Amino acid sequence: MTDNPSLSPWDELPVRDELRGKSPYGAPQLDVPVRLNTNENPYPLPDALVERITERVREAARNLNRYPDRDAVELRTQLARYLTDTSGHEVGLANVWAANGSNEVIQQLLQTFGGPGRTAIGFEPSYSMHGLIARGTGTGWISGPRNEDFTIDLAAAEKAIAEHRPDVVFVTTPNNPTGNAVPPGTVLALYEAAQAAKPSMVVVDEAYVEFSHGDSLLPLIEGRPNLVVSRTMSKAFGAAGLRLGYLAAHPAVVDAVQLVRLPYHLSAVAQATALAALEHTDTLLGYVEQLKSERDRLVAELRAIGFDVTESDANFVQFGTFADSHAAWQRILDRGVLVRDNGVPGWLRVTAGTPAENDAFLDAVRELKKEQGKS
Amino acid sequence: MTDNPSLSPWDELPVRDELRGKSPYGAPQLDVPVRLNTNENPYPLPDALVERITERVREAARNLNRYPDRDAVELRTQLARYLTDTSGHEVGLANVWAANGSNEVIQQLLQTFGGPGRTAIGFEPSYSMHGLIARGTGTGWISGPRNEDFTIDLAAAEKAIAEHRPDVVFVTTPNNPTGNAVPPGTVLALYEAAQAAKPSMVVVDEAYVEFSHGDSLLPLIEGRPNLVVSRTMSKAFGAAGLRLGYLAAHPAVVDAVQLVRLPYHLSAVAQATALAALEHTDTLLGYVEQLKSERDRLVAELRAIGFDVTESDANFVQFGTFADSHAAWQRILDRGVLVRDNGVPGWLRVTAGTPAENDAFLDAVRELKKEQGKS
Repeated sequence: MTDNPSLSPWDELPVRDELRGKSPYGAPQLDVPVRLNTNENPYPLPDALVERITERVREAARNLNRYPDRDAVELRTQLARYLTDTSGHEVGLANVWAANGSNEVIQQLLQTFGGPGRTAIGFEPSYSMHGLIARGTGTGWISGPRNEDFTIDLAAAEKAIAEHRPDVVFVTTPNNPTGNAVPPGTVLALYEAAQAAKPSMVVVDEAYVEFSHGDSLLPLIEGRPNLVVSRTMSKAFGAAGLRLGYLAAHPAVVDAVQLVRLPYHLSAVAQATALAALEHTDTLLGYVEQLKSERDRLVAELRAIGFDVTESDANFVQFGTFADSHAAWQRILDRGVLVRDNGVPGWLRVTAGTPAENDAFLDAVRELKKEQGKS
Repeated sequence: MTDNPSLSPWDELPVRDELRGKSPYGAPQLDVPVRLNTNENPYPLPDALVERITERVREAARNLNRYPDRDAVELRTQLARYLTDTSGHEVGLANVWAANGSNEVIQQLLQTFGGPGRTAIGFEPSYSMHGLIARGTGTGWISGPRNEDFTIDLAAAEKAIAEHRPDVVFVTTPNNPTGNAVPPGTVLALYEAAQAAKPSMVVVDEAYVEFSHGDSLLPLIEGRPNLVVSRTMSKAFGAAGLRLGYLAAHPAVVDAVQLVRLPYHLSAVAQATALAALEHTDTLLGYVEQLKSERDRLVAELRAIGFDVTESDANFVQFGTFADSHAAWQRILDRGVLVRDNGVPGWLRVTAGTPAENDAFLDAVRELKKEQGKS
């Protein structure tokens, strides 16, 4: 949401005061040849997986008059298996919970551990939905600091936690929109600081972790009941359209969110589709390897062109700097490439696409650089 | 949620105080021959519709790496067409909003118009999720009165509205779990009372309206921007597994809920499946006619057996009375038929199933009546 100075047609409606004059969250959905703005995976699902989805959905549709499995047991079991296989840390059904996108996972966590009279902190710039969902759940939002290079300033972060004693601490790693991963030692130190101050829940948002040079922090949930790792199938699984987010944590956390989850929140068709995708994990993780390589190429070529680039462990790259980043965004769009202006002054974000899409992007920013050199 | 006196494993977690010691909402999902407990439609989707769903989902799956249409334009357009065709009152895309089940619709309405420092009222017994979602969104809950025959006591309701000045007023018609519809004049009077007191939003929950002897109150949204009608595809469309709820209201209401909806909340597979079901509206409404006739048969036969029965405009029937309704529920279950104990003292609720399922239920309660006669 952003400030919207124009009069809304609903100025007469009894909406909550803090919503007045705001606009909904969301990147512009523009019809351009190369869309590198929302960190989507550029590779369509393989045909075999599309067929498997239709088979599983056909089966689910035959029983669609009945409510879905409220506890999504089969899906959570397979998600746990995926996490175990890829992290080397064994988790089971009882450790995993799933919802309609990681946004709903985060909403449920804030309803359970945040809410009215409580606060949450994030270190910004970061995933802006954390703060927006905090507002949507009545949770006070504290904007924590970062260094100029977008790393977390641990001393300042510890001080902010000690001072504000937040109930929920968000750590996004790799961070969005900047791309850099948070060192495990920093996450552990933040966890300790949060426990000393309150104790509070620490949510490690790993939406992009499959693209990281390093490992998932999933093993940290062992012995830390107040640490939650959130994940999504939108990026690595190439399934943004599916809206399937999940978390791994101590079973007590999974029990607790049951108290706020809407009953039968996850449709039978979503469960069926996600299960089909999980059967094709190996193929999909192959695409992830291609995207990591393209991401590294984007970083190298952007630097060769003369841009500043933030270290990236994600499927996107933050580059700059621009005196007027919105004007730069528009000039790139004029060349048919849609990137994202996340509101970080001086910086833009580009998603790693197919090699051809990335070439188109690099051509566009080379032109931009030439123009800048002339002006 | 109900009180749970046993110690939870998460007593150490920093969950919100008002959630401590509660259990999640949800009917027991028991594996019995005849399940008439959750108001599901007993008729599986016809084969032609199952095939149409797989076709539409196949198409959606090919593009699943991209986020879904955030505004669900095609789906909302078709929902508007369905509402226009069945109510005779013309509504369009701008009047309709859709979400993951009517529970999510209600959650979004409470986040927008309720929330911390605000209150909502319902006339109980009614759909218990209204109060639970109020709690989940930090909205204060006021339990309004009903008459002994489960009709709304208008004078008492108006008094409660004037006294508490709630921000949101829920009117469920046909009411769940009692089954009776609220007369349009009563809804209008409650709307006027709510506007005089605050003004507040009035949410008319019409989850079961397709089974009603009367008409939808949808035309009342005309000229009443603070009136919302909520609907679902779970019942009349035989698609409980799909989780597709929607609302119709002034376009300003649709605009306002955009500020709290999670972006891309509705998956591409859910949108595709719902669109397929809407193509088969005529067939599905044919099943509704069968169920209405079976519902009327249940009412008549239950009365003939000697039970008290609440007038029903829904796909379920409330019957009683029992000195110990939970014991009666268990005796019916012992005969292989699962009905619902909604916690209304003395009463149980049975969903209208297939003719064979209803026969099994009627046999079970005939036996029960004989036993009661003997004791």
